[in-house]
Amino acid sequence: MVLKGKVVIAQGGGPTAVINQSLVGAALESRKFPQVERVYGAVHGVRGIINEDFLDLTQETTHNLECVANTPSSALFSTRDKPDEKYCKEIFEVLKAHDVRYFFYIGGNDSASTVNIVNENAKKSSYEFRAIHIPKTIDNDLLVNDHTPGYGSAAKFVSQAFNGVDLDNRALPGVYIGVVMGRDAGFLTAASAIAQKFPDDGPHLIYLPEVPFDKEKFLGDVREIYRKYGRCVVAVSEGIKNEDGVPVAKDLMSKIEYDAHGNIVLSSTGALGEKLASYVKENLGISRVRSDTFGYLQRSFMGCVSEVDQHEAREVGEKAAQFALWHNMDGSITIHRTGDYSVDYRLTSLDKVAKYTKSMPEHFINKEGNHVTEAFKNYLRPLIGQDPFTAHMLRAPKVDKILKNI
Amino acid sequence: MVLKGKVVIAQGGGPTAVINQSLVGAALESRKFPQVERVYGAVHGVRGIINEDFLDLTQETTHNLECVANTPSSALFSTRDKPDEKYCKEIFEVLKAHDVRYFFYIGGNDSASTVNIVNENAKKSSYEFRAIHIPKTIDNDLLVNDHTPGYGSAAKFVSQAFNGVDLDNRALPGVYIGVVMGRDAGFLTAASAIAQKFPDDGPHLIYLPEVPFDKEKFLGDVREIYRKYGRCVVAVSEGIKNEDGVPVAKDLMSKIEYDAHGNIVLSSTGALGEKLASYVKENLGISRVRSDTFGYLQRSFMGCVSEVDQHEAREVGEKAAQFALWHNMDGSITIHRTGDYSVDYRLTSLDKVAKYTKSMPEHFINKEGNHVTEAFKNYLRPLIGQDPFTAHMLRAPKVDKILKNI
Repeated sequence: MVLKGKVVIAQGGGPTAVINQSLVGAALESRKFPQVERVYGAVHGVRGIINEDFLDLTQETTHNLECVANTPSSALFSTRDKPDEKYCKEIFEVLKAHDVRYFFYIGGNDSASTVNIVNENAKKSSYEFRAIHIPKTIDNDLLVNDHTPGYGSAAKFVSQAFNGVDLDNRALPGVYIGVVMGRDAGFLTAASAIAQKFPDDGPHLIYLPEVPFDKEKFLGDVREIYRKYGRCVVAVSEGIKNEDGVPVAKDLMSKIEYDAHGNIVLSSTGALGEKLASYVKENLGISRVRSDTFGYLQRSFMGCVSEVDQHEAREVGEKAAQFALWHNMDGSITIHRTGDYSVDYRLTSLDKVAKYTKSMPEHFINKEGNHVTEAFKNYLRPLIGQDPFTAHMLRAPKVDKILKNI
Repeated sequence: MVLKGKVVIAQGGGPTAVINQSLVGAALESRKFPQVERVYGAVHGVRGIINEDFLDLTQETTHNLECVANTPSSALFSTRDKPDEKYCKEIFEVLKAHDVRYFFYIGGNDSASTVNIVNENAKKSSYEFRAIHIPKTIDNDLLVNDHTPGYGSAAKFVSQAFNGVDLDNRALPGVYIGVVMGRDAGFLTAASAIAQKFPDDGPHLIYLPEVPFDKEKFLGDVREIYRKYGRCVVAVSEGIKNEDGVPVAKDLMSKIEYDAHGNIVLSSTGALGEKLASYVKENLGISRVRSDTFGYLQRSFMGCVSEVDQHEAREVGEKAAQFALWHNMDGSITIHRTGDYSVDYRLTSLDKVAKYTKSMPEHFINKEGNHVTEAFKNYLRPLIGQDPFTAHMLRAPKVDKILKNI
């Protein structure tokens, strides 16, 4: 029997450059099915459901949906709320009141948990209900998935940023430290390596949350690179931790701010980069040491999108609607790499994607723990799409000196 | 009589996204003239001249020069050296030793001064010599010029960045403060306004070095916008000053670092943005307040270039070679707006461009001193080139509540 009712789509967590592709993929596909009475969008994620803030996406033009798909950040707006059991029950009650039978939630592992609990509520109430989690995160830390929508575009931003600052650092040499988002997973910081073309290109050093950060080792690394090249470009993850697992950034902050999930707010402070810069300056006697914290630019910069990421984000949205509406199935859409480069989408049970996160595997990190491997570069390369931006250098020969040779 | 000899081209100051267009424009045009015996590039600007570090650009392929032209940052590398009389005399001596008769220096107003003094040295020695300054600066602060090469592309970066963070701020509302480069001129910070499309788009407030910064006024402005929209996006120039002309950033820095020009190093510290964010948080009781300092990304980001800026940078380089080689003239190439939108290039005497800088004129700043005018937007729009990146929003109608209306 075909399950008649409404569809609700929501977006959660940090925005990405392609999250609206998933929204539009799910919305347009859902609108094709006769059993779908309406397609609603929840405004500000799960909080919008609680507040019954819905937009009727069946009254939105296809053209404008396509335009929105190409716009970064969450068009339905987002939330940092992390629903507990009671919150999930409320979500379910609202969805039931509106005769919602299909729920698609685009987000990270927390969102997968939410979808799971809401679904359990439906089962307990014997309410026929299909709930699907659509993957999204620039951190690339979802289990089961080869990679996640949003990552490729953010990686492209980080790659282009490091490509540029490395050229800048060649022109005006010194030490440059760029701090990249990533609380527990170093995938985004590691993307800085893709910018390397010439053998002496930066970043020369990469520090990830997966490798315990040792200040003395860091100092030695910078000293060696600086001696070799007369300059040094460093990529550092905001989430680097010391031997005891304490974020290095935590020691440096005067006031510690926690988000709704109980995590320390690492973004929006330049403290980590600046302290590391001071540390280098004081201990190595290098005068020109600069740091930047990439902050929010890296997840929402207009016009820096991987077309591979775009297509995949669209497809996971569409697949969610197909699995729910053709097959009457629940779960999380997962991306699997099947070739070099090809992917397949599968439906995975929600509990396998929820709760836990994925870190950089060992074979992606070099032995020294201060850079990435070729295996990582091969993994990342197809995800950032075609990149027409390549640096070129002058290869003209040096002229013989006249005065200095006298 | 035709003046036979070598050409030297150099790049000074902060790199831009299009400075290599000027280098290649001057090099390729110079290579066409039979009186030009060699085209040299000085490595690391004027310091490269002193050190006799030249590359022979006549042995560089045209193809690779074209590739380099499309690469951001200074391909000949740069310097922060600000030559005094003695330094300029040394420059002249080296140029003379190498039989250099044409000197093209791409840079800001300090570079124009250098060209001027070197030229005076040549005159005093009755050495036949043509010296031309080629304009470049993301700050857009050169006198006589309508605008300067490098500005359009940096402005495009700032515009796309604010376009993105504004969408991000809609999704997860709060107060966002973005700090943009610009010590004395607010042109680059003002470019954040071009991102605005919908009436409630950010940045809602813009603070420039040209308007004395009043913390209480700032607080009131943010309060009002936040009350109106439930969020607030602010663009702040790193160079904002208080009533007494003291940089606001200076009060906030624990250690003050000066560059070779005696200016405080404002970039590479997030202190200004973070202090303003704390100030808002503490006084307005808004919990989500974030700040980013755009830092070096804004002048060297790969792949964010205005094609208008690119073409003009190319043309000022070419014009330098033409004025020197066809017309035997010295001076600074200046850009003049002749229509909407068209430009013309003229040769202006060096002393008119050297030393002083230009600020935002009054009619580009709104009466409140916290935003820009339509006149500024009309001025800027053609400079950032075609921008295919436009934000779109959902226009779907709201759904009636069921539970909340019971």
